[in-house]
Amino acid sequence: MRKWVWFLIFSQSLIAAQKTKMELPWSALPKTPPTPKDNPITPEKVYLGRQLYMDPRLSKDGTVSCNSCHNVMASGGDNRAFSAGIKGQLGGRSAPTVWNSAFHTVQFWDGRAASLEEQAKGPLINPGEMGMENHQVVMDRIAKIPGYVSQFTKVFGQNGLTIDNLAKAIAAYERTLITPNSPFDRYARGDKKAMSAQAIRGMNTVMEVGCVSCHTGKNFNAPDDLAMGEGYYQKFPTFAENEYVTKYKFLEDKGRGALTKNEDDNYFFRVPTWRNVALTAPYFSNGAVKTLEEAVRVMAKVQLNKELSVNQVADIVEFLKSLTGERPKQPMPELPPDPPGMTTID
Amino acid sequence: MRKWVWFLIFSQSLIAAQKTKMELPWSALPKTPPTPKDNPITPEKVYLGRQLYMDPRLSKDGTVSCNSCHNVMASGGDNRAFSAGIKGQLGGRSAPTVWNSAFHTVQFWDGRAASLEEQAKGPLINPGEMGMENHQVVMDRIAKIPGYVSQFTKVFGQNGLTIDNLAKAIAAYERTLITPNSPFDRYARGDKKAMSAQAIRGMNTVMEVGCVSCHTGKNFNAPDDLAMGEGYYQKFPTFAENEYVTKYKFLEDKGRGALTKNEDDNYFFRVPTWRNVALTAPYFSNGAVKTLEEAVRVMAKVQLNKELSVNQVADIVEFLKSLTGERPKQPMPELPPDPPGMTTID
Repeated sequence: MRKWVWFLIFSQSLIAAQKTKMELPWSALPKTPPTPKDNPITPEKVYLGRQLYMDPRLSKDGTVSCNSCHNVMASGGDNRAFSAGIKGQLGGRSAPTVWNSAFHTVQFWDGRAASLEEQAKGPLINPGEMGMENHQVVMDRIAKIPGYVSQFTKVFGQNGLTIDNLAKAIAAYERTLITPNSPFDRYARGDKKAMSAQAIRGMNTVMEVGCVSCHTGKNFNAPDDLAMGEGYYQKFPTFAENEYVTKYKFLEDKGRGALTKNEDDNYFFRVPTWRNVALTAPYFSNGAVKTLEEAVRVMAKVQLNKELSVNQVADIVEFLKSLTGERPKQPMPELPPDPPGMTTID
Repeated sequence: MRKWVWFLIFSQSLIAAQKTKMELPWSALPKTPPTPKDNPITPEKVYLGRQLYMDPRLSKDGTVSCNSCHNVMASGGDNRAFSAGIKGQLGGRSAPTVWNSAFHTVQFWDGRAASLEEQAKGPLINPGEMGMENHQVVMDRIAKIPGYVSQFTKVFGQNGLTIDNLAKAIAAYERTLITPNSPFDRYARGDKKAMSAQAIRGMNTVMEVGCVSCHTGKNFNAPDDLAMGEGYYQKFPTFAENEYVTKYKFLEDKGRGALTKNEDDNYFFRVPTWRNVALTAPYFSNGAVKTLEEAVRVMAKVQLNKELSVNQVADIVEFLKSLTGERPKQPMPELPPDPPGMTTID
C-alpha cells in the first residue's frame, strides 16, 4: 500500500517533469558535441589544435591568430563590429563567437562551411584576415617548425602534415569550447530556482512573441533534428519598412545572396545562437547595434513587426543573460619554437 | 686523522668549485627576481596582472594586448622586426622578450623606464601601439568592467582602481615570467654535462673574444652589482666602417640619443640579454638580421672589429642555444566580461 502511494507520486512527478520539458522549445546543452567519425577527439589532438588556434604564425605577417578574432579568454569573439585582419584591415562582418560553435550545423554568418574543419581553412587564406597566399604556404611554414612536425606525426601519422589535418586539430580543439551549466541549462535540467522570476517571464515572452520560431533547439539557432552540414537560414530583415533598417544599414549585407549570387538567397542568414549572447555585443552581422536591449527591440520590430514594451524588453534581456554558461578552464599552450636563431615569419 | 683527511678533501673541492664559479662572468638565473618593496607578488595580483596582460581592451580599438607583441605562449616577443600596434601601424623597434625582463635594471631598448611598473604604462598611450588617449581613458574603461573593479579592490583596497596599480599588477605578473634551468644554468650550478662540448667551446670563445665585457652578469646584460633603475648602456655600432653597418642600416636608430637629445648618448643602447636569444629572431633593435649566426658575425665585427671563423660562429651559436630556459606553465586567464549586453570597446 505504502509502496503503491510512493510509486504514484513518483510517476506523477515524472509526467510533470516530462511535461515541463516538452513545453520548452530548447534543451540543456549536451555535455559533448557531435563529432565527425573521421575526426575523433583526443587529448594530443586538442593540445595541437589549441597551439595552432593561438599561433599568430598562421597569418602572413605573424600578427593574427584564430584567437585574435575568436578570443577564448573573453567572449569567444572580439566584441568589435568588424574584426581586424593583418595590416589593420577590417572585415565585412562581425566575428561570431567560437563558444558552442561545435553545435552549429553550418559555420559563418552565411553558412558557407559545412563543418568546423571546413571553416578553419577559410580565414587562413582570406587576404583581409590571416592573409596566407594559399594552404600550401601555410603548411610550408608549419613544416619549418620542428615541434609541429613531430606533433602532426604523432597525432596523424606519417605524412600527417596536411592542411586537412591542421583543420581537424583546430576543429577538435573547438569542440572542447562549450559552455555548460548556464542558469537556463540548470533550469532545463530541473532546477527551477536557477533562473530568476524575471528571466522566466522573459522566457515565456519570447515563446509568446514568436522568437522561438527561429531561435529553437539546444543551441537556440536550429531545429534539433537538423543534420550537421544542413543549414538553417532565415531572412533578415523580414520587415524592411521601419526606421531600424535604415538606421542600422541592414540592407547593405545580402547574406547568402552575396555568396550564391542567387536572388532568392538575398538577406538570408544562418540564425545566430542565443547562447552567451550577453557576452557578444555588438550585435548583428554588421555589429551596428551596441546593446542587447536595442538588439531585442530591433529583432521584434524587424522580424516580427512587433513593438515590445520596456518591461518585455527588460524581461527578455534577463532571460538571455541566463544563457551565459561556464567557460572551460584550460592551460595556456606553449607554442613550438621556430628553429633556433631563426624566424619563420616573412 | 681520518676526519682531518676528509676535511682537507672537502675544503679543496669547495675551493675548486669556487674557482670554477669565479671563472664564469655569469651566474645561474636566480629563482626569484628582485621585487620592489611597494609591490609584493601575491597570487591574486599575478592573476589580475595576467588578465590585464592578455586583455585587448587595454587598447583603443580592442585589437592589441601586451601579449600581442610580448607573446608569453611563444618567445616572449613577436619574432617580427617591428611590432604592429592598432590599425596595423608598425613601431620603430623590435619588441624585446618579456622573459626575464624582471632582471633588467632598466626597460626598453633605450632604458627609458626604470622599472617594469613604469614600462607597462608606456605602450598603453603610445598612439602607434595601444593608442589610448591617456591613462584616465584606460582606467575609465577598466572601471566599466565589473570583474576588474572587484579584483582591483580586493588586491589594492578601496580606491585601488588607479593606473599605478594596473601597472603594478602587470609588473607582478611579469616577475613570474622567468625561464630557469637552461642547460647553461644547470652547468653553472655544477652539472658539467648539461652543455655540449661545442657549447662549452662557444662559451670559452665569447670569453676570449671579448663579448663578455658587455654581456655579463646573471642576465648577460649588466654587471650584477648594478642597482635596479640604473642603466647599463653601450654604443652600437662601435666600429661603423664596415659593410654590416650599411647593409643593416645601423646608423638610422640613435638609441638613447633620440630620447635625451644629447649627442653624447647617440647610438647608445641598453645591452640586450642573451637569455633565450635563440627564440627571439630577428635580431637588433631594427630586427634587420634574420639569423643568430649572422647576428654573431655582425656583433664581432661591429663591436669588436673581429672576424670570427665559421667554427667560432657555430660554437658561439651553440652556447647561445644553451641559454634557452624552461617557459613557465600557466593557466589561461578568464577575462572579466563587459557589463551584460554591452561592449566597452569604442
